[in-house]
Amino acid sequence: MTPGRIICAGLGPGDPDLISVRADRVIRGATHIAYFRKPGRQGQARQIVTGLLAADVTEYPMEYPVTTELPFDSPDYIRLLAAFYDDWASRLADLARTTEVVVLCEGDPFFYGSFMHLHSRLQGRAQVEVIAGIPGMVGCWGAVDQPITWGDDVLTVLTGTMAEDVLAGHMQAADALVVMKTGRNLPRVRRALARAGRLDDAWLVERGTMPGQRIIRLAEVEGTDCPYFAIVLVHGKGRRPEALE
Amino acid sequence: MTPGRIICAGLGPGDPDLISVRADRVIRGATHIAYFRKPGRQGQARQIVTGLLAADVTEYPMEYPVTTELPFDSPDYIRLLAAFYDDWASRLADLARTTEVVVLCEGDPFFYGSFMHLHSRLQGRAQVEVIAGIPGMVGCWGAVDQPITWGDDVLTVLTGTMAEDVLAGHMQAADALVVMKTGRNLPRVRRALARAGRLDDAWLVERGTMPGQRIIRLAEVEGTDCPYFAIVLVHGKGRRPEALE
Repeated sequence: MTPGRIICAGLGPGDPDLISVRADRVIRGATHIAYFRKPGRQGQARQIVTGLLAADVTEYPMEYPVTTELPFDSPDYIRLLAAFYDDWASRLADLARTTEVVVLCEGDPFFYGSFMHLHSRLQGRAQVEVIAGIPGMVGCWGAVDQPITWGDDVLTVLTGTMAEDVLAGHMQAADALVVMKTGRNLPRVRRALARAGRLDDAWLVERGTMPGQRIIRLAEVEGTDCPYFAIVLVHGKGRRPEALE
Repeated sequence: MTPGRIICAGLGPGDPDLISVRADRVIRGATHIAYFRKPGRQGQARQIVTGLLAADVTEYPMEYPVTTELPFDSPDYIRLLAAFYDDWASRLADLARTTEVVVLCEGDPFFYGSFMHLHSRLQGRAQVEVIAGIPGMVGCWGAVDQPITWGDDVLTVLTGTMAEDVLAGHMQAADALVVMKTGRNLPRVRRALARAGRLDDAWLVERGTMPGQRIIRLAEVEGTDCPYFAIVLVHGKGRRPEALE
């Protein structure tokens, strides 16, 4: 009568000290943990909790399928990825009949997280609890030590994967900006910011709140590339509170 | 040689269990705390930490100036508010010469927080550390138990104080939506959502993650009013991950 369940613990932006009290307790007490990673890597989520885990914890690394033959957005790769999520949803649902399994997710699980692909597949098959986390972008704007939004500022969160004119349109319409999924998209993001007249106010934050954190004005970035999880920020200037100053 | 300082601790969405490990530790160890509140109220920030404080903590409630004579956006009221922030920035800077003062802030201090009005005034006058928190909106979308953004979804955060046509324009352009500062603005927010064709997908979340939490489809809300800190959400449907399913 005390069945197992799945708890997805949001890990926050990277500093283990920014994990929530509840997630910290659940992770320290976990007997079984699962986390996504690329093959051959330890994985960011696993790395964040290194100092917190019990010595005898059972680990389930969920390794994304990779192939050098199929492009990332091809129907065949998409089918491969769907089968991967199907498989892990079934394995976790099986485990959750008798065990409490803690799934580790960077940031907040419901904000651009991979866990949602398991969450949708687990509906009705297992008891699932999701513990909110501080999104990576919040850690990044905190690292810059400036408020991201004041008063009536509009904040828009974009992904660097979008077309340049679509990006530029959103960048013009909003006060504060966050651009996720930069990486190889950085040159396009940069051109879109320049078109929108926002490049001089943009920051690039790499590994926010983590060892090796790097904060630099985007206009001063030399290369054309950055880590996939680097975030570009433009701070709002306050639609009304300016007047309050 | 060990001067005091000001630590602004983000409290997250309301559930004390969602405070970060670092903020929890700082709050439990605090000898001096400060927090904003309306006169005559305990204040949300103070209420969240009720079970965490030392018995002999010294408290500085920072009570917003109120007047029944001046409208909220009049130049006179704005001057009154600026003087209030000036005064508290000076008092906290004085205290921070010898003492560690913990300022409590709901959500994340850099995301639509009142602390930023002190933060800007304290530059160069005191050592200030800001501890990130889970924004209120993250607690609210977690309470609905649905991912807010998938794949390449664009998220836009708006304040209900904006004009109806401006709201509707942003609501049409984005995939996922968060509307803050609803309260008496709710009827206008609702009309804007209807114009943008998004009303049927909108949720109203009151007191997310707190006692008395209420989650309701906005289209089914009877009244024309709601708490000021209630949040309206429209979830993204996934620009690409739909294809991944």
